[in-house]
Amino acid sequence: MSRWEPEARERLVRAALDLFSEQGYDSTTVAEIAERAGLTKSTFFRYFPDKREVLAAGQDTLCKLIEEGIAAAPVSASPLEAVAAALDAASTAFVPERRDLGERMEAAIAASSELQERDALKRLGLTNAFAKALENRGVDDMTASLAAELGVLALKRAQSDWSKSANPTAFREIAHQSLKELRTANSKLS
Amino acid sequence: MSRWEPEARERLVRAALDLFSEQGYDSTTVAEIAERAGLTKSTFFRYFPDKREVLAAGQDTLCKLIEEGIAAAPVSASPLEAVAAALDAASTAFVPERRDLGERMEAAIAASSELQERDALKRLGLTNAFAKALENRGVDDMTASLAAELGVLALKRAQSDWSKSANPTAFREIAHQSLKELRTANSKLS
Repeated sequence: MSRWEPEARERLVRAALDLFSEQGYDSTTVAEIAERAGLTKSTFFRYFPDKREVLAAGQDTLCKLIEEGIAAAPVSASPLEAVAAALDAASTAFVPERRDLGERMEAAIAASSELQERDALKRLGLTNAFAKALENRGVDDMTASLAAELGVLALKRAQSDWSKSANPTAFREIAHQSLKELRTANSKLS
Repeated sequence: MSRWEPEARERLVRAALDLFSEQGYDSTTVAEIAERAGLTKSTFFRYFPDKREVLAAGQDTLCKLIEEGIAAAPVSASPLEAVAAALDAASTAFVPERRDLGERMEAAIAASSELQERDALKRLGLTNAFAKALENRGVDDMTASLAAELGVLALKRAQSDWSKSANPTAFREIAHQSLKELRTANSKLS
């Protein structure tokens, strides 16, 4: 075990995204990802079941933060206020050091149908995390589903804006801005 | 070619869903699906690239109907009125003879992670169809995304209610009821 081991997961993600963009997702092997990260194949498999799952790195953490954020919102909070609390909690996962990963991940997804599929599944997982946590607060399932979609749209939009913004702004601020814009959009629906 | 050929696609879907529920998705082969449908493997592959794609049967048609419905809505229609027009158009795909397929498809999806994945992708495809058609009408992308999510939620809810309803009601009516309920839920968000 190398002394870098604690950062192994992040190094594997970076190595994978580099290789996906250099030579394409399909022609990249797990062995190459491990080598680029300076690790072994068996270390890779300790973190990910296959190369596709690199894309889902952090999904469990994000779902957990969303659930905790919603559970911790005041009893009086409306569904969208609870969603805002979830975005606050989720913001802790978006540290400045990872700001460069977003665009590379988007590029990798855009270039591979297999990754688009994994991304669709990730999105569904996030939606379910929002919806279930809201239902646990007694929100009816239709309102919960709708609020969950707004939460995921705000999160996705914020992720994209955050990674692209010229001057680094805190993720939390960007996420709240996205939610505010979605509320405005919502008033233009009918 | 048998004289049943024109219905081959539908027979393959029914045979696949029967086998998925009897013996599970993983242990069902394309050869078995074809045999149950009274067709050959090569006929199967004329309609579907693999057994997973059976789940996506009708997706292209549905996307096309959604796009056409939105494009044909009056210029003065609001985003949600355009979504309602898409649901009207989509309703033509839900003929009474297929009402029994919904529950069987839901059961198959619930039992297989591979099918859940395909379903997530299908959902994303439908969302994109709504959103792009709305953007083509000049709706800004955020409002279009939001209206698209409402459209898919209404469609999914209607599909589920339609296949489960004790007395057969026209899909169109159920879809409009779902959209109405979503509008009500939307007013409870903030």
